[in-house]
Amino acid sequence: MKVVVAPDSFKGSLSAIDAAKAIALGLRRAAPDVLVAEVPLADGGEGTLECLLNATGGTRVPCEVQDPLGRSITAAYGRIHEDSMDGPVAVIEMAQASGLGLIPEALRNPLITTTYGTGQLIRQALDDGCRRFILALGGSATNDGGAGMLQALGIRLVNRNGESVGYGGGQLGEIAAIHTDEWDSRIAQSEFLIASDVLNPLLGPQGASHVYGPQKGASPEIVDQLERHMTIWADIVASTTNVRLHGLPGAGAAGGLCGAFLAFFPATIRPGIDVVTEYAGLERQLADADLLLTGEGRLDSQTASGKALLGIVQIAKRHNVPALALAGSVSGDLSLLYEAGLTSAFSIVNGPMTLEEAMQQTGDLLADAAEQAFRTFVARRS
Amino acid sequence: MKVVVAPDSFKGSLSAIDAAKAIALGLRRAAPDVLVAEVPLADGGEGTLECLLNATGGTRVPCEVQDPLGRSITAAYGRIHEDSMDGPVAVIEMAQASGLGLIPEALRNPLITTTYGTGQLIRQALDDGCRRFILALGGSATNDGGAGMLQALGIRLVNRNGESVGYGGGQLGEIAAIHTDEWDSRIAQSEFLIASDVLNPLLGPQGASHVYGPQKGASPEIVDQLERHMTIWADIVASTTNVRLHGLPGAGAAGGLCGAFLAFFPATIRPGIDVVTEYAGLERQLADADLLLTGEGRLDSQTASGKALLGIVQIAKRHNVPALALAGSVSGDLSLLYEAGLTSAFSIVNGPMTLEEAMQQTGDLLADAAEQAFRTFVARRS
Repeated sequence: MKVVVAPDSFKGSLSAIDAAKAIALGLRRAAPDVLVAEVPLADGGEGTLECLLNATGGTRVPCEVQDPLGRSITAAYGRIHEDSMDGPVAVIEMAQASGLGLIPEALRNPLITTTYGTGQLIRQALDDGCRRFILALGGSATNDGGAGMLQALGIRLVNRNGESVGYGGGQLGEIAAIHTDEWDSRIAQSEFLIASDVLNPLLGPQGASHVYGPQKGASPEIVDQLERHMTIWADIVASTTNVRLHGLPGAGAAGGLCGAFLAFFPATIRPGIDVVTEYAGLERQLADADLLLTGEGRLDSQTASGKALLGIVQIAKRHNVPALALAGSVSGDLSLLYEAGLTSAFSIVNGPMTLEEAMQQTGDLLADAAEQAFRTFVARRS
Repeated sequence: MKVVVAPDSFKGSLSAIDAAKAIALGLRRAAPDVLVAEVPLADGGEGTLECLLNATGGTRVPCEVQDPLGRSITAAYGRIHEDSMDGPVAVIEMAQASGLGLIPEALRNPLITTTYGTGQLIRQALDDGCRRFILALGGSATNDGGAGMLQALGIRLVNRNGESVGYGGGQLGEIAAIHTDEWDSRIAQSEFLIASDVLNPLLGPQGASHVYGPQKGASPEIVDQLERHMTIWADIVASTTNVRLHGLPGAGAAGGLCGAFLAFFPATIRPGIDVVTEYAGLERQLADADLLLTGEGRLDSQTASGKALLGIVQIAKRHNVPALALAGSVSGDLSLLYEAGLTSAFSIVNGPMTLEEAMQQTGDLLADAAEQAFRTFVARRS
């Protein structure tokens, strides 16, 4: 009996990796000899690197880079699929170098925060021989349109006097020209897969500055400033690359970092969960599995997580593998999920309790629920 | 696929019968063509008659009797196993005629409440040809030692002047002699099975008056009075029948009514759940079943209900039928239950909520849980 354990995180209480561990614990309580493949899931947000390393047994490569404020920190990129015929895949999680979590709240200011460190991670991976990349964009502290990342990879951004400009969203308005003569030529020989579910364009009321600026520390005045700078940046990028990021869906992800990839890199965007399930080997693990156990904080067919679940159970169905879901709460009509391949869904809550009580013991409840679900699944007499 | 649905009541929110209906609803949502046998459970308390009628398709026989205060009411006994070679079985639920629920709180007084009506139910069933009886003793309003029941069946209780005494626990002290010359002779030709889990003796600090008197409306002074009267009654019963009820375990059930059965009837006591499962045909239904679904308000291996569950899953195990339990809350170490035959246990709660919220929607939650558990059970690929 082989069970693939592929939970999402239980937001606020348990990472996907720890959720997978808890489920595996419950399964082994029910059947000590069960074969468990842990494939924790992520959607391109923070935790994506960790999940892919965990699922594939990849390597974390430490890397000295600049954080969003230019301070030196040790970040990391990941190497997975080391033995692939196509060479290793580098997993660049932008939040490792340029994430909001790296800066105390008082210092958050997208006028000055830069994606330079993310560019350094890419350069290091290129130096280390990687030519295939997964770019996880969630959790950014920046709104610099990816300018810092480009600068780290040889692009020179100059003002009308021909002088190099500095870093951060506040400098974009100074840029008069983009010089690509020192641009890292290895990039054109590489593949970049962007894991992102964000559909926001670079500019406008649904753009990066207006929608995500405030949570990165921008006041309404700063948001307006950022939007003006970003417009100038978009115009110059368009005149340089012929790619108009202004209204392009997805270009606004990670403070416009995604736009820079789309304009300057051989890059494609795919939903984060699809990238993770593919590179974590979910499909390969399911090929000889008897059961899939997934899970998440809230299961509701109407939510985005419901849509991620939809994708996962569809994969399971393709392989004729029953799919059980365990969630903090289960609500709504599940019929679409049933059709897609979901077998059943259980709440991990084992009696009346508050949300706080449930979140304090998510791991224990999840292990218990996995144990009960598995005992039920294997109980049928032939 | 045949599923036996045998839940206990969810105390305070759902009767065993409604619980069985809710589970059956969920099962049919999961598999419209599933064969469902509903065998709601009871333990000899109120609801036992209804459960046995429901499980067996028996008949409710209306019957004019006296309530605990001597007022005329329409009660009923039940006839089950009508086609048995051994003749029908009469189910006498004492609470139907002599139950606490029949009297408003202000009128509750075990000095005057009588089991006379219960005797009338038995007489009617005897008149109707029944010679096998199940006696369900829970929920009594009385503390008359079963004297009223005996009086309804021909026993004369007289004072020292040879005059018949009246009814209620307050009259027991007047009794100087028990005359059995008009005692219904059909009783000796019958079988009486008492469904009761009560272990209290008739007298003493653990006796009927002290332990159950207060909840039937007795003040501390009245409790002392009742105990004195009951002692006189026990002495006279002993000198008449040679049965000493004083310290006899179980004799204190239903205000001593059980003692009267033990002294004057060919009667045996068995745990209520055992009687109900046997006569409801649980064993017969399990013989060709693929699954048992049981349930109750709280599942905890340490509770009495945990012990009832223990018995049920043991029966299922004998027939090699997996047993799933659904409960409002599930807690504690279930390993003893697993050993006994429990496959798994799920809480019906589908997310963090208060006890009140859970109790307001117990039926819906139970149906949903049954649906999910069944979908899981049948999902395994061969």
